[in-house]
Amino acid sequence: MPHLIAVDWGTSSLRGARLDEAGRVLEEKTAPLGILNVPNGDFAGVFAAQFSDWMKPPGTRCLISGMAGSRQGWIEAPYVACPAGPDELAQHLHWIESGRIALVPGLSDEQADVPDVMRGEEVQIFGALRLAGLSDGLFVLPGTHSKWATVRGGRVVGFRTFMTGEVYGLFAQHSILARTLELDAPLDESAFLRGVARAANGEGLLHNAFGVRALALFGRLSPAPSASYLSGLLIGEELQQQKLPAGSEVIAIGASTLTARYGLALKQRGVAVRTFGAEATWAGLRALQP
Amino acid sequence: MPHLIAVDWGTSSLRGARLDEAGRVLEEKTAPLGILNVPNGDFAGVFAAQFSDWMKPPGTRCLISGMAGSRQGWIEAPYVACPAGPDELAQHLHWIESGRIALVPGLSDEQADVPDVMRGEEVQIFGALRLAGLSDGLFVLPGTHSKWATVRGGRVVGFRTFMTGEVYGLFAQHSILARTLELDAPLDESAFLRGVARAANGEGLLHNAFGVRALALFGRLSPAPSASYLSGLLIGEELQQQKLPAGSEVIAIGASTLTARYGLALKQRGVAVRTFGAEATWAGLRALQP
Repeated sequence: MPHLIAVDWGTSSLRGARLDEAGRVLEEKTAPLGILNVPNGDFAGVFAAQFSDWMKPPGTRCLISGMAGSRQGWIEAPYVACPAGPDELAQHLHWIESGRIALVPGLSDEQADVPDVMRGEEVQIFGALRLAGLSDGLFVLPGTHSKWATVRGGRVVGFRTFMTGEVYGLFAQHSILARTLELDAPLDESAFLRGVARAANGEGLLHNAFGVRALALFGRLSPAPSASYLSGLLIGEELQQQKLPAGSEVIAIGASTLTARYGLALKQRGVAVRTFGAEATWAGLRALQP
Repeated sequence: MPHLIAVDWGTSSLRGARLDEAGRVLEEKTAPLGILNVPNGDFAGVFAAQFSDWMKPPGTRCLISGMAGSRQGWIEAPYVACPAGPDELAQHLHWIESGRIALVPGLSDEQADVPDVMRGEEVQIFGALRLAGLSDGLFVLPGTHSKWATVRGGRVVGFRTFMTGEVYGLFAQHSILARTLELDAPLDESAFLRGVARAANGEGLLHNAFGVRALALFGRLSPAPSASYLSGLLIGEELQQQKLPAGSEVIAIGASTLTARYGLALKQRGVAVRTFGAEATWAGLRALQP
């Protein structure tokens, strides 16, 4: 198998890895050149500046996942509909240079009245499946827009997006709660888990979020732990919408600061968690090699 | 009974009415002098500038409800705990000038782990009860922070706040959804009710809000109706948390543009609505006259 340059080109950052024939990572790089930060929309120029050295050896291929394949990206690689696995993605690679550089399409779930979409997370899921030696599982990819995906027989059969990270930011920066939050405080696990537990009361986020203010008014939640409490409320609200029987397992993929929070919250609900990071992206892109 | 000057001094506006002995409204005024816009915190000065003429007749009394009695207001009038009715409020008026000018305390509900608070809405509820000739009911006061209150025997026995209006603003102004919303478009009832119905799917706001973006991506929701759809999602989410058997009645108090939306949403769920506006505030303050 030829050398692979694996690239995850997201909204805010551009990450790449150079893999050898056996799929081992030889080198990684990250630049703050997400698709929203590409000067003059010159994707080819940014790509060349970052990766032309890596692309020199004859036969080297590059696969690019993430928002680079969206309408706001390099070229739109249309979504592949669920259920879909690595084979369906590999069949729909969008070649920028034939046999050399390709965009990986995202997935759509159009089985409900309202469609859902992901770009990049599908590759991480297929990579984690391979690394874990699994063909079935429930996956969470926390972030600005968290994804929950169900995999059976190696294919994503359905998924849903939750605006958890973005709504946390909205509350923390722009809402009335911003006044009482100390955003730089380190994670307070006890306050975080208090928020997770609170979210299980079934009264909904619109009510529970106001509790952050009411608790502060009554001096029952100080600024330092209140950001952790709000984070727990939001992640707990996301968990409310999942079918998570005690004793089940969830595979969490993402930055360790985030997957650690999901691990705490899921453990409180009696659910086991396995976590993967960037290695899942590289393994997933390798799984798509033609 | 002496003449009453009824004042609702809220966060963003100051509203007053001059009532005669029989409680008829002789005159009303509104100024953009909410508690956050009082120059140098000179509440006494603003009050005098707005109301000294009205206060001239000997024996005239003024009762002030709303955020003027909060920690950020004129003087803090501590919350009265639920259950509470007009008698409890009247007993805890906070006199600024004895027998002449008083702040009405707000209500707190400390029956749950997390407390809840209101300031001003309690007066509107007691006014609406009097105007409707009722002593029991379920009330909604839509707004930035909507309140749902249960009244039995003329007393508020419990209530909960929902950040519905504020979260609508956060999504509309600061979130990824802002790009696809046309905020100036008139209410599209069909899109609004589609959002209300969608909120009943039990998948939660964090997921359903992302649907606004996904529908737009697939060309299945255009910018003009999408703000109405989002409004329906949020009000529908608020309704999800209420016990509303079909055939029940809710009393909605507030600006008619908002109570009309709640009326549409509640009607879709088979719930009848009666609405009241500013008259409820004046009737409520009159009910507290010593």
